[in-house]
Amino acid sequence: MAVYTEVSDEALAAFLALYDIGEAVSFKGIAEGVENSNFLLRTTKGQFILTLYEKRVNATDLPFFVGLMEHLSSRGVTCPQPVRNREGAALGTLAGRPAAIVTFLDGVWLRRPSVRHCAEVGEAMATMHLAGADFPLRRANALSVAGWPPLLAAAAARADTVAPRLAEESAAELAFVEAHWPAGLPSGVIHADLFNDNVFFLGERLSGLIDFYFACNDAFAYDLAICLSAWCFEPDADFNVSKGRALISGYERVRRLEAAEVEALPVLARGAALRFMLTRLVDWLNVPPGAKVMPKNPLEYRDKLRFHQRVRSAADYGLDR
Amino acid sequence: MAVYTEVSDEALAAFLALYDIGEAVSFKGIAEGVENSNFLLRTTKGQFILTLYEKRVNATDLPFFVGLMEHLSSRGVTCPQPVRNREGAALGTLAGRPAAIVTFLDGVWLRRPSVRHCAEVGEAMATMHLAGADFPLRRANALSVAGWPPLLAAAAARADTVAPRLAEESAAELAFVEAHWPAGLPSGVIHADLFNDNVFFLGERLSGLIDFYFACNDAFAYDLAICLSAWCFEPDADFNVSKGRALISGYERVRRLEAAEVEALPVLARGAALRFMLTRLVDWLNVPPGAKVMPKNPLEYRDKLRFHQRVRSAADYGLDR
Repeated sequence: MAVYTEVSDEALAAFLALYDIGEAVSFKGIAEGVENSNFLLRTTKGQFILTLYEKRVNATDLPFFVGLMEHLSSRGVTCPQPVRNREGAALGTLAGRPAAIVTFLDGVWLRRPSVRHCAEVGEAMATMHLAGADFPLRRANALSVAGWPPLLAAAAARADTVAPRLAEESAAELAFVEAHWPAGLPSGVIHADLFNDNVFFLGERLSGLIDFYFACNDAFAYDLAICLSAWCFEPDADFNVSKGRALISGYERVRRLEAAEVEALPVLARGAALRFMLTRLVDWLNVPPGAKVMPKNPLEYRDKLRFHQRVRSAADYGLDR
Repeated sequence: MAVYTEVSDEALAAFLALYDIGEAVSFKGIAEGVENSNFLLRTTKGQFILTLYEKRVNATDLPFFVGLMEHLSSRGVTCPQPVRNREGAALGTLAGRPAAIVTFLDGVWLRRPSVRHCAEVGEAMATMHLAGADFPLRRANALSVAGWPPLLAAAAARADTVAPRLAEESAAELAFVEAHWPAGLPSGVIHADLFNDNVFFLGERLSGLIDFYFACNDAFAYDLAICLSAWCFEPDADFNVSKGRALISGYERVRRLEAAEVEALPVLARGAALRFMLTRLVDWLNVPPGAKVMPKNPLEYRDKLRFHQRVRSAADYGLDR
């Protein structure tokens, strides 16, 4: 849920005057997304999403995100396409923030995805991985292993107020993944945040991917590991191996995993679960007064992490070889 | 900013199956409105707003609100029109809440309305007052004078934490308006919450009124008094008499105020300012943990109230007679 910044009538009109998309006929804040302010914008010429990039997004990363959406879009991945203004710029300034207008994508995100949906997600992710191969810009993953110790340090002192011994459990896990993190896996552009609210469906068919603001260069299999936690657990925290099998086999219909990726999958899944547990924990402990965002529960990811710790091989995720 | 309730995919599909408006192709929570959860719904047949009525709205009032929108709409007041399902019902149940689908209204609410906009608002309000004349349902104004002592009682103990002597100032004002509140003024259906975020414009022209969830039967001039505070002050808390004149003369182009209404306007304006100060104060002092709503500052209305206390007659609002 996110609208952090108010946009005045005059500022919006002046911003739109730079584009060839007509005048605003409707402008509503959207109660989704956590990092930025998003508005549904209807103009005399169509429907768009206007995003103001808030301070958690590094302005120097914006050309990567915007360029990536254009690149993927041109290679057949359905995702929002940045709209360029009359001067050819896809990024501008509105209400003192960097701002972009992107095309509106039809589709609904699924509150309760099924096995079949997981297969679609796997396939779309692999397609995206291949489509990103010749994208020329690069962005390091700021939230990979090297980024986790500062998160733990920021949360450690108060972590045990959230759950008993959570600081100790987190530190032990961090030491494990640091010691076992794989190197040299096939890499490229990954989404890095492909949760169910970032994938749109129309009926049973996946209709598009959104929110590329964590996208970066990293191991493809790490992206898949994030999805194992994001898509394949039931609300009671049980891993659904049918969903895992569907996700992985959907992925492999487009891009077959190498042996090293299969072997690394459990530790990648532990790292991914730790990453989301830590960022959620930091957010949970630092809800600003007057926040319009409900923080997500970090313990959901502690429980998923505990499952991944018990996994012996990728076969436990449903991989059939 | 409001989405209090999550709607599952299955529940939404089942709810839409009762209607003749096609299937959902997009469903996004809207970060506007305070009382209810609002979603922008695009279907294969059009664009709509889906509202879930949360517990602050009394379910027995819903037929009044929904019937009023239909009534006004049929008399040429542009406002959202409830969509009836195949059984003819405009109200249903979704996610355990009363729910309605209304038509989507083009337009943008103005962050900084001008004098000209105020004239349009006055005219639209008078048109609405006349259009409601033959609406058969009735609803008492729960937030008129009799409703204010309980609000003050709920806030008094902690009011002075918001501003020095605020409890005392509020009690004195309440005593004044109770002693001077007019009776027998021309009455009918009023909007009772016609703030700038409830009025849409396309360019300079008013395109519609929304959010009738405070509408009730009360004095017409009280509705106008609410708008004097809502539309005619500048951000620095100065009353802009040009805006006041435009609002009132716009109103009188459609419905001329009677002498008793003109005389009562200052005390009605004091009451209206007190009402919004008190409701904001109660909300301010009772922000629930994890709230997704930023409470509005009650002191904005204390300052407006102080202006109205200094007013000698409706001439100070720009009324030219």
